[in-house]
Amino acid sequence: MPSASLVKEFENLIGKENVFTSEADRQSYAYDAAVLPSVVPGLVLRPTSTEQLGALIERCYANGLPMTIRGAGTNLSGGTVPDADKSVVILTQGLNKIIEINEEDLFAIVEPGVVTAQFAAAVASKGLFYPPDPGSQAVSTIGGNIAENAGGLRGLKYGVTKDYVMGLEFYDHTGELVKSGSRTVKCATGYNLGGLLVGSEGTLGMISRAILKLVPPPQASKAMMAVFDNVQKASEAVARIIAAHILPCTLEFMDNMTINLVEDDVKIGLPRDAQAILLIEVDGHAGQVADEALIVEEQLKKSGATQIVVAKDAEEKNRIWEARRKALPALARFKPTTILEDATVPRSKIPAMMKVIKGLGEKYNLTVGTFGHAGDGNLHPTFMCDKRDKDEFERVERAVDELFNTTIEMGGTLSGEHGIGTAKQKWLEKETSRGTIGYSRRLRKAIDPKGLFNPSKLVGV
Amino acid sequence: MPSASLVKEFENLIGKENVFTSEADRQSYAYDAAVLPSVVPGLVLRPTSTEQLGALIERCYANGLPMTIRGAGTNLSGGTVPDADKSVVILTQGLNKIIEINEEDLFAIVEPGVVTAQFAAAVASKGLFYPPDPGSQAVSTIGGNIAENAGGLRGLKYGVTKDYVMGLEFYDHTGELVKSGSRTVKCATGYNLGGLLVGSEGTLGMISRAILKLVPPPQASKAMMAVFDNVQKASEAVARIIAAHILPCTLEFMDNMTINLVEDDVKIGLPRDAQAILLIEVDGHAGQVADEALIVEEQLKKSGATQIVVAKDAEEKNRIWEARRKALPALARFKPTTILEDATVPRSKIPAMMKVIKGLGEKYNLTVGTFGHAGDGNLHPTFMCDKRDKDEFERVERAVDELFNTTIEMGGTLSGEHGIGTAKQKWLEKETSRGTIGYSRRLRKAIDPKGLFNPSKLVGV
Repeated sequence: MPSASLVKEFENLIGKENVFTSEADRQSYAYDAAVLPSVVPGLVLRPTSTEQLGALIERCYANGLPMTIRGAGTNLSGGTVPDADKSVVILTQGLNKIIEINEEDLFAIVEPGVVTAQFAAAVASKGLFYPPDPGSQAVSTIGGNIAENAGGLRGLKYGVTKDYVMGLEFYDHTGELVKSGSRTVKCATGYNLGGLLVGSEGTLGMISRAILKLVPPPQASKAMMAVFDNVQKASEAVARIIAAHILPCTLEFMDNMTINLVEDDVKIGLPRDAQAILLIEVDGHAGQVADEALIVEEQLKKSGATQIVVAKDAEEKNRIWEARRKALPALARFKPTTILEDATVPRSKIPAMMKVIKGLGEKYNLTVGTFGHAGDGNLHPTFMCDKRDKDEFERVERAVDELFNTTIEMGGTLSGEHGIGTAKQKWLEKETSRGTIGYSRRLRKAIDPKGLFNPSKLVGV
Repeated sequence: MPSASLVKEFENLIGKENVFTSEADRQSYAYDAAVLPSVVPGLVLRPTSTEQLGALIERCYANGLPMTIRGAGTNLSGGTVPDADKSVVILTQGLNKIIEINEEDLFAIVEPGVVTAQFAAAVASKGLFYPPDPGSQAVSTIGGNIAENAGGLRGLKYGVTKDYVMGLEFYDHTGELVKSGSRTVKCATGYNLGGLLVGSEGTLGMISRAILKLVPPPQASKAMMAVFDNVQKASEAVARIIAAHILPCTLEFMDNMTINLVEDDVKIGLPRDAQAILLIEVDGHAGQVADEALIVEEQLKKSGATQIVVAKDAEEKNRIWEARRKALPALARFKPTTILEDATVPRSKIPAMMKVIKGLGEKYNLTVGTFGHAGDGNLHPTFMCDKRDKDEFERVERAVDELFNTTIEMGGTLSGEHGIGTAKQKWLEKETSRGTIGYSRRLRKAIDPKGLFNPSKLVGV
């Protein structure tokens, strides 16, 4: 816990109501959505202007306090777990202004604490479209999405958060403001520091403002569900659709375990006997949507889908996506501990990856449900277990270890969209190289010489 | 010039035929496409494998030799002008393998010396599409495109080089290999070092391999030319088209001066009386193209176009783009010195920017031709002058200075696609901040402690 005089200083800076010292308040920020030991911070600060954010960083840094900046804490790799009991958690919830939605030039300027879904809705109300849709969008924040390079269901066609950051402003360790990027589509001015900050997990600076790209919304869309009696057939269908040069805006997979747990929960008539379903949406110009939907159906049939249900109206379409959105909560409810992975492979490797996941469940005698973004190779094999059962949890850890090694051997990546945090550091060198770790640490050390920006995260300090 | 023993060492490493020491050879690499004083390097090296590249960097660095890595030298901001006569120029032309074009997973892996247009053609022959098309694509290289974050005509709809870099491998100053990104669409593994290297102008590492994103090609396209008797009307038409939610793949502008110089050159019947023309292409699904072309025509008419010529076939379409491709060579031929700028503004500011450019020509009594990528606010006002005329050249410099100041005031950026190099450093702090320069220099110093990677470029060392 910082000294009383420093707490007083913070109170003077941002108001007593925005400085949280009580045990109960601090407990609330001791964890995030990853399954990791919690660490209670020494202090929680909530700036309500970006200038306050800069001033707080300068004060904390000068006083040697480790800082973890936190949006909604929904990340799945430990990026917002504090580092030590003297850590300060800085909340972005008071920095929640949508500063501008520019309809002529197709960009928006927002503060980091703006909630993703609220921003997307504000953009939609102006007749425009902000595509990134991480699973946690109802509560997650834009700042958190940027710091973790959040993905989502639309990644295949529309890309991820990184692809929508046109510019960033952030504070360095001295509280000085750094600006990168522009309101223009093209910008080759200076280092791409905005690009560097994306996915940097709070370790290279504290984001105070983002310029985000918007696009015209698709005119039309069509959603469908395809049922398979065999997981391999479903995963081959994914490869066939892409090979036919169709990029659906969403192409999601759910296995039998997930289907049944979701159906237990929402009772919308999912096929309980199916070994897998694919949930697919194509969007764009009306003529394109009609043509692409036909090609998708054709490829699904060729791959051996036993049933294809095309949503007839918005209500049916919503039901399809409701099923998908319930996947994680349904799995999470099944057992006390949910280990949700996001190992990602080139999409043609999905059939092979599905076999690997099945084999791991059998080899280590574990309950695994798999769902996820099949279209971009980003599956979420989810190990359902009980952390208190030491033997079982150790088997989960061994299975995850094997999963990552295989992913890397297949030319895939440790993390499609959840980040490295503290959870995945030990595999990082295997995917990259010794040189990559050294380069990253040198860079980090130059930017954060005292090692106070979310110190244990990403590559360590 | 490095010592004879070091030259011998280089010869042993990469072969005598790839080490150039003669005055004539070295003279060829003393300049690039920017109007800047040339500097003859001390030595020119041409590695023929990436391993040789790593070894050369290690040797040069250990021996304190400044290095400039060079693709085709087409950049327009001085990024490939050597720094001093002891500088070593490292050519990438021997690193020109297309390692893989993966049709299933929509990516390619290439070495840095691959020529952009040759790569795009190889991709097209597999039925896929690599959109970035910088003006110099016939000779420019992928490595240079990445180091400068090259843009092109399709930026508005398809983005720039940055948007197609899925992963990079590069050598650090010790010759160690750094790897970033993945073969997967999504990747949240480690710092986005690939994103940082894009646009870093050879100052943070030497690219040895790139994983590039490919997309399915558009099914159809339609090109047209719209004629205006007034520059303002043409620039307003640009804003109207975007406001109607159409993103043409190309939306180019040429003023009267450019039209006439091009027509002198190619004689394809351009309207010599026109004050401006817009050259527009929409692409995508056939139905979408038909609909969008109609909306574009409607907006062009509303904006007061006096004539709209829709290309009836591929030959007419080629003629339209031939006219655009000739713009720079035609202007460049008119006077001995061509100062081509790429100040970029949010597209709604194009009408205002056109007024500014006209005003500058009058105020400083200069010949300016303007053409460029109107759709993304990236105009190329081109000052045609004679560098030997000191008075005139000074007026050009004052006009450019005023141009940049106005661009920044309009919320634009110094460089849409040409980079900072040595040409634009003096305005960098004005667009960004003191903090940005400091942050960039700290980062650079950590990565290049001796200041040997293209030392004078971008933010200086």
